[in-house]
Amino acid sequence: MADPTARPRAGATEPLTAEEVALLDAYWRAANYLSVGQIYLLDNPLLREPLEAAHVKPRLLGHWGTTPGLNLVYAHLNRVIKARDLDMMYVIGPGHGGPGIVANAYLEGTYSEVYPTISQDEAGMRRLFRQFSFPGGIPSHVAPETPGSIHEGGELGYALAHAYGAAFDNPGLTVACVVGDGEAETGPLAASWHSNKFLDPARDGAVLPILHLNGYKIAQATVLARIPESELDALMRGYGHAPLHVTAEADDDPADAHRRLATALDEAFDEIARIQNEARAALAAGRDAPRPSWPMIVLRTPKGWTGPRVVDGKPVEGTWRAHQVPITDVRDQPDRIAELAAWMRGYRPEELFDEVTGRPRPELTALAPAGRRRMSASPHANGGELLRDLTLPDFRDYAVDVPAPGTSSTSATTVLGHLLRDVIRANPRTFRLMGPDETASNRLGAVFDVTDRVWEGEIVATDEHLARAGRVMEVLSEHLCQGWLEGYLLTGRHGLFSCYEAFIHIVDSMVNQHAKWLKTTREIPWRRPIASLNYLLTSHVWRQDHNGFSHQDPGFIDHVVNKKAEVVRVYLPPDTNTLLSVADHCLRSRDYINVIVAGKQPALNYLTMEQAIAHCTRGLGIWDFASNDQGGVGGADVGGGVADGDGLPDVVMACAGDVPTLETLAAVDLLRQHLPWLRVRVVNVVDLMALQSESEHPHGISDARFDALFTPDRPVIFAYHGYPWLIHRLTYRRTNHHNLHVRGYIEEGTTTTPFDMVMMNGLDRFHLVADVIDRVPTLGARAAHVRQAMVDERLRVRAHTREHGEDPPEIRDWVWPY
Amino acid sequence: MADPTARPRAGATEPLTAEEVALLDAYWRAANYLSVGQIYLLDNPLLREPLEAAHVKPRLLGHWGTTPGLNLVYAHLNRVIKARDLDMMYVIGPGHGGPGIVANAYLEGTYSEVYPTISQDEAGMRRLFRQFSFPGGIPSHVAPETPGSIHEGGELGYALAHAYGAAFDNPGLTVACVVGDGEAETGPLAASWHSNKFLDPARDGAVLPILHLNGYKIAQATVLARIPESELDALMRGYGHAPLHVTAEADDDPADAHRRLATALDEAFDEIARIQNEARAALAAGRDAPRPSWPMIVLRTPKGWTGPRVVDGKPVEGTWRAHQVPITDVRDQPDRIAELAAWMRGYRPEELFDEVTGRPRPELTALAPAGRRRMSASPHANGGELLRDLTLPDFRDYAVDVPAPGTSSTSATTVLGHLLRDVIRANPRTFRLMGPDETASNRLGAVFDVTDRVWEGEIVATDEHLARAGRVMEVLSEHLCQGWLEGYLLTGRHGLFSCYEAFIHIVDSMVNQHAKWLKTTREIPWRRPIASLNYLLTSHVWRQDHNGFSHQDPGFIDHVVNKKAEVVRVYLPPDTNTLLSVADHCLRSRDYINVIVAGKQPALNYLTMEQAIAHCTRGLGIWDFASNDQGGVGGADVGGGVADGDGLPDVVMACAGDVPTLETLAAVDLLRQHLPWLRVRVVNVVDLMALQSESEHPHGISDARFDALFTPDRPVIFAYHGYPWLIHRLTYRRTNHHNLHVRGYIEEGTTTTPFDMVMMNGLDRFHLVADVIDRVPTLGARAAHVRQAMVDERLRVRAHTREHGEDPPEIRDWVWPY
Repeated sequence: MADPTARPRAGATEPLTAEEVALLDAYWRAANYLSVGQIYLLDNPLLREPLEAAHVKPRLLGHWGTTPGLNLVYAHLNRVIKARDLDMMYVIGPGHGGPGIVANAYLEGTYSEVYPTISQDEAGMRRLFRQFSFPGGIPSHVAPETPGSIHEGGELGYALAHAYGAAFDNPGLTVACVVGDGEAETGPLAASWHSNKFLDPARDGAVLPILHLNGYKIAQATVLARIPESELDALMRGYGHAPLHVTAEADDDPADAHRRLATALDEAFDEIARIQNEARAALAAGRDAPRPSWPMIVLRTPKGWTGPRVVDGKPVEGTWRAHQVPITDVRDQPDRIAELAAWMRGYRPEELFDEVTGRPRPELTALAPAGRRRMSASPHANGGELLRDLTLPDFRDYAVDVPAPGTSSTSATTVLGHLLRDVIRANPRTFRLMGPDETASNRLGAVFDVTDRVWEGEIVATDEHLARAGRVMEVLSEHLCQGWLEGYLLTGRHGLFSCYEAFIHIVDSMVNQHAKWLKTTREIPWRRPIASLNYLLTSHVWRQDHNGFSHQDPGFIDHVVNKKAEVVRVYLPPDTNTLLSVADHCLRSRDYINVIVAGKQPALNYLTMEQAIAHCTRGLGIWDFASNDQGGVGGADVGGGVADGDGLPDVVMACAGDVPTLETLAAVDLLRQHLPWLRVRVVNVVDLMALQSESEHPHGISDARFDALFTPDRPVIFAYHGYPWLIHRLTYRRTNHHNLHVRGYIEEGTTTTPFDMVMMNGLDRFHLVADVIDRVPTLGARAAHVRQAMVDERLRVRAHTREHGEDPPEIRDWVWPY
Repeated sequence: MADPTARPRAGATEPLTAEEVALLDAYWRAANYLSVGQIYLLDNPLLREPLEAAHVKPRLLGHWGTTPGLNLVYAHLNRVIKARDLDMMYVIGPGHGGPGIVANAYLEGTYSEVYPTISQDEAGMRRLFRQFSFPGGIPSHVAPETPGSIHEGGELGYALAHAYGAAFDNPGLTVACVVGDGEAETGPLAASWHSNKFLDPARDGAVLPILHLNGYKIAQATVLARIPESELDALMRGYGHAPLHVTAEADDDPADAHRRLATALDEAFDEIARIQNEARAALAAGRDAPRPSWPMIVLRTPKGWTGPRVVDGKPVEGTWRAHQVPITDVRDQPDRIAELAAWMRGYRPEELFDEVTGRPRPELTALAPAGRRRMSASPHANGGELLRDLTLPDFRDYAVDVPAPGTSSTSATTVLGHLLRDVIRANPRTFRLMGPDETASNRLGAVFDVTDRVWEGEIVATDEHLARAGRVMEVLSEHLCQGWLEGYLLTGRHGLFSCYEAFIHIVDSMVNQHAKWLKTTREIPWRRPIASLNYLLTSHVWRQDHNGFSHQDPGFIDHVVNKKAEVVRVYLPPDTNTLLSVADHCLRSRDYINVIVAGKQPALNYLTMEQAIAHCTRGLGIWDFASNDQGGVGGADVGGGVADGDGLPDVVMACAGDVPTLETLAAVDLLRQHLPWLRVRVVNVVDLMALQSESEHPHGISDARFDALFTPDRPVIFAYHGYPWLIHRLTYRRTNHHNLHVRGYIEEGTTTTPFDMVMMNGLDRFHLVADVIDRVPTLGARAAHVRQAMVDERLRVRAHTREHGEDPPEIRDWVWPY
């Protein structure tokens, strides 16, 4: 194994002067002091008085262990930013190190700028301390409330993916990313190291990963801290990095540690500059530079460094016991108050803050960069500040011609691919399309007319559409797709994630965190809106022709609707033109999570573009062409309906989703053939949230409108794309809910034909007709023969399918015949 | 970088003889032939007649690309098993290579044993081919229907974790695990390599990872195939492995590839034997051997090897175009029929299958091991065959004393820890406790009285409870915890996964897949029941004192209830004794996913053990001690209720979960103080599925019983642990649903006090009392002053909390006062 210290130095700088070391150390002590103060103190922030119980918070909540390391890196990055005039962001995985990041934002002045009551004086410091982890105050973690942050980090695993997302298409930006050794054990983080195969040194910014090993998680050792350094070094080299190792022990003179870290950072930033210069020179010369081995730093510091060494006779500094609050139950025990005071006084606050005002001393604040160069004030970390609208082509130009409803077929995602192609063409640096190797499978291949898949690895002659630059990012990790896109959006850009419907559940928990982030940022005045997170879920539950049960799960919709209504939108466009209209709307929107579910297989078109726009604007509506309850609109009003001249239909056939819409219309066809006098109304739902009441969701419709559509008292047979219970959950307060009968996916499936799949789940046209017969009062006896015919048809179709291996032609080729 | 080929050989064997090579190759050809036949043929399985359109399936569905590689490894592992008399399982990540695994099970005879109609003759082969990816047949993936499988692999990422789970506590077992290069890009798989830090060579079995790089995913290149071999080698060494590289090109003589692969496998198995012998000798001598560098194989073969090289003028073999069906649209095009026939005849079926019967020739079947040594017949892969009941202590022995309801507190999980300690003591080789570093945080620390955390990495003096052997598995990856536990359960053992409630969403998609597996195995007669997958979700949404919003999500319950009712159980024990009763029930159960949500903080006890058992048996019930609607049972029946002598209460206060139960009882206390004549019934729900109707879930109660509990027409105020809509979704068909008002988590939260959290979400006692006043008819005017008092109380409490940073003592110390 190569000795990392023997690595040739690219442009090494002189060691720090003693004065620089002293300044760095003072800055670090100031940040540590402010961190401890936040965890512990209600009052007496500068310890001007002897510390008393009344100065200490009654509930001690927060995490100390990771904080001094984060503060150390922050101070050193500030030195680098100033020395090199860099545009830098700081993404930290250990989000529970919140006090440290808040402390640094306070030292830089940003905190007081966005929260003026937290002023840079003693009164402000008191409020700074008091508000932390306190009712009505700020969260204990790095959070949307924290200036300079795009990453909460409470749920570990996504720091590095966010950092790369921020760096894409930001050639002037460097993202320093701290990976804690707990986070390093997670799957998403383990995969994220390979993000360097997708970062172009010529066109993108740089990411400097700092693996911060303090050796422990909450309660025990960590994997990467307990393997030999040679093994860790090989791992990082295997990930494509050139590691620089910096280690500090509790007994080290901090000055030595400062010198070692500064040297390593200088080396890393020299190397980043060299890599970028070489790649950019090559690009200017029309060549591709070879994929670089990017620097990264392995930084080992004791957990809870500079905190109490021993508490209650047990070692704390350098162990897992430093994870949260090292000295607990302080208020009741004078000796603990003394220990806390000694710890805090050890940072020598009198040297750090003005003795009169309490303001950080000017020589300290001078270490920090100015204005937007401060990491806490980076506009990239408040991406809405940088966000520009996409240049969007007119989606109407991609409309498919629909001369008559339900008679011609297109693949909706194929047509969407044409729109996305032109979105990419018009926005060559601000829009990316993410997907786990499914862009072509999901029929979005038209984008490859104008762009490629980003690929910094080897490219061979038979490859197609792999290139150093490209708008399409494919990696077989939904976690990376999601994490990259989140980082990209949070820094003020746009994108879309196309995914197999079933496997989007892989990122359920990431979606939770992003939804929470959006919900919180909406309540923070200085946070500007960002582009929505757009999902195109295709290869959906009903058409997993090559796969089967493991690929069939429509439950992501259920998952997202538990999030705050203000941030969640769900669309089920029934055909191509509605998909175009929905997609355009989503690409223009802000601060939402938009879920679009649409099939990729050729499917019937129902609406002209004009009709599609009107339908999407309403969110749901009666399809006149398919209804015969309004005196001839459907062309089949031959009288004799069950309802006695009250103008209402005998039954409402509702549908949401492309396959359910097809089956509903085919059922209506059967009803017209067998029970032509039955008045049927067809309601299609494209915006699922419209089903909720106005009070529950901004898109919800009024009870009056709901009643007008679904009637106050007629049976409603609802064919839904996903788990049927969701429709009940959305409508249980509606007048006619007790007449609502929902068909959907009931977790039955395998590799079989498309129609067999809907039959297995009772969503097929024959079941729907039987449902109508079972639920329309007085129809039972008059329609018993029809019901039996439906049973016979099911059996006949099943027998055909099992003999021939495909659906009968009259099923496959069914079109709306009226 | 070390040259892997220069690695010293441990007990290298002689190269294969020409005869052995020929036999291996014939076996491989047979498996490949059977694989292609499954994808393509309806009839004419042995190509005795010229191939015609009618012999070919109308829909060609399946995946060829990965299959020949899987077949190659299978044949070679069979040689190794026979030569060394090994007990081996085969876990394959690329589950879409189903035809290959089915083909091998067929060659080994297992397939015909479990599915007698698929006989080892021409008629059976015809049925074998026809059923694949065919309506009424078998799925295209390796699935529960596939003998020898514990791993479907449709959702990529979990193969290696499953393999390790199978190997734990199975010292005689070797699990060969193929990781495809698509899967290798996923996060969970990237983390899984580190599983070798948790496998004890003395006490556990071995895992041989085979990274099978064929270079492509669905549509493009893969990361690990496009980095230099030196980088990949470093990566594997960094993961703690000693890689052996075997590469075959399309133009290679297969005989050479066979020799190279056989040599690498011999070397790997020699090394595994050496590692195990050394570790076991050390253990016998009372020492710990150093952590070994386990062998692994990097096998590079062309995608779709031996398939068509070129189709339609485009290269197929060795490219992504071989991923699914290399030659499509066969039936309509005679030249494609000819290409298919030539491809299949290239395997020389006449040499492989008896010309009269169609049975695989005896020299081929002799290559396979016999009986349970066949990987397709491994009892480990049908874990229920090996499963033995846990030896369980009597959970009643751990009961806490409850002299009066609601007056004493314990931490429920702390007490559960005592039970789990004794479960571990009584079952030292068949039970494991998984958790992402949270065993102590979740207050289960008593288990460390009898066991340790498994840790094969470095152990230092200050560590506590780290050891080479242990029952507790902690790694900061919910994916690994889940994957290991699934593998452990599927091979016939028991376990429990303790997790922070919010972060169990990280494994949502894995739970989907396990639920699908369980649902399917219940329909397969030869699959035997396995132990349930038990979750203890604690550190739950209401008590994230140190963290905040990112740690607050109770939606996992919503996620699991979408799965088939037969496999899902959800329990919300309100106190310690009910938790003990529920846990005992879950540990005895089979084939379920049991979700238990219980707090770790000290909380009031309500039920004696006898009462707890009765309550858990019923699943839900009236708490008489807290109710005053039955003539004095609650001790407060002072008359004058709103209901006019009909024996029904004026209001039902329902609750599910520990915090909602506390708030409900405190609300009842307020009602008794302020409106003592109001008849209140308290219903507690411990088994959430009991709320559903009998027809929806096996635990569901009848409508009559539901009406008896919740009344047909009185207001029901339901305080629920999670998102309130779930209660509506479970009860929307019940008589009294329109009177049901549910309070729960509405996605509001931060780092604050416990009571402030319930106030933020409207679940607090004051809100509940106001709900009663708003919903009991005629109460409004009589109780307006009480309602105002509740508003005042909320304001008073909030002001206190914001001033003092903790809840007022009368809230913190509230007990049931009657």
